[in-house]
Amino acid sequence: MDELKIIELRESVFEDNNADAALLRQSLKEEKTFLINLMSAPGSGKTTTLLALLKKLAPKINVGVMEADIDSAVDAEAIAAAGVRSIQLHTGGMCHLDADMCRQGLRELDYEGTELIILENVGNLVCPAEFDTGAHMNMTILSVPEGHDKPLKYPLMYQTCNALIINKIDTLPYFDFDMDKAIAYAKMRNPEILVFPISAKTGEGIDALADWILGLI
Amino acid sequence: MDELKIIELRESVFEDNNADAALLRQSLKEEKTFLINLMSAPGSGKTTTLLALLKKLAPKINVGVMEADIDSAVDAEAIAAAGVRSIQLHTGGMCHLDADMCRQGLRELDYEGTELIILENVGNLVCPAEFDTGAHMNMTILSVPEGHDKPLKYPLMYQTCNALIINKIDTLPYFDFDMDKAIAYAKMRNPEILVFPISAKTGEGIDALADWILGLI
Repeated sequence: MDELKIIELRESVFEDNNADAALLRQSLKEEKTFLINLMSAPGSGKTTTLLALLKKLAPKINVGVMEADIDSAVDAEAIAAAGVRSIQLHTGGMCHLDADMCRQGLRELDYEGTELIILENVGNLVCPAEFDTGAHMNMTILSVPEGHDKPLKYPLMYQTCNALIINKIDTLPYFDFDMDKAIAYAKMRNPEILVFPISAKTGEGIDALADWILGLI
Repeated sequence: MDELKIIELRESVFEDNNADAALLRQSLKEEKTFLINLMSAPGSGKTTTLLALLKKLAPKINVGVMEADIDSAVDAEAIAAAGVRSIQLHTGGMCHLDADMCRQGLRELDYEGTELIILENVGNLVCPAEFDTGAHMNMTILSVPEGHDKPLKYPLMYQTCNALIINKIDTLPYFDFDMDKAIAYAKMRNPEILVFPISAKTGEGIDALADWILGLI
């Protein structure tokens, strides 16, 4: 295994992030690399979900991961330990990634021939939703312990995501989580959002999510 | 019960938030009102913890609550339903509160004679830690399902808080949460941080936390 790369991101100089994101998206498309931007609150299980997904995806396609965090490299280390190419991006205190920060990471990932790259964004339900990273698809995770009311409180996150993963469903018996309400509130924000209930821990629902992702590429 | 007040906050015009926060803190001190800024990730149980705390505090002192959210009024409604004076602050998409936004809320709370005001900040481990609200004390909640590694990833939140509440300890059997590691990582960020393990749901640990808060006022 190569040594883990930790990239200290620089603040972007581009004024129009939307235009920059559209450029990045187009150039990745030409290179036949599909980019997924995975967002959620801290602790909803982004890395565990990624690990479960990579088990299904890595034997079938060439996949890479970019882990964004304010500090630490624990997530990228976990992904690398699973044998998947990954780098750790440090945002230097910044609460989100934009397209140019994403591009800085891509440059270091050395992704030629990679069919799928998953960007694990900073754990935050607010700011990451405001910045287009250039990804072809946005996914968010809501975990059962967080409660079903989150789409009421963080509207933009659900509006900007194509898919909602509801994680930790193995813990449903221990929490007052109303699955129907969670889905209804999410669809109130975004009627087109696809919902995948999973348990990254037990593996339940991972096949359906992995198959859906493979169908996009 | 009065009708619930929902305040749409305006962006602050003050350039030096730290100076403004110091002014607010001093003027509240002169008015004998103690302000607590409660921060955490979405879904870690800020409102449930507040409800459990208010049951202990409200019979003893004059207390008020300001609930900050990007959207919805579910939290302020829950607090008002418990018979405690509360208002809902809407940040208009903004990811944090600063001192002037806090002051805008205070003006509407009509807090003369209130000994304790608790501000429930926007659910976010990143941005709220960067802005002094003028509070006399900062508290953060880490809930067991989020995992013990959060102080590694969100250093500033733990550096700026006087107290760490570890919530949902009733769910410890269902998660791989290492209490010793959580406390060690938090103290790595802030050796002075006080730790209160609680379950807002069962009430465990709430007495100790309430007693400590009463001792500060």
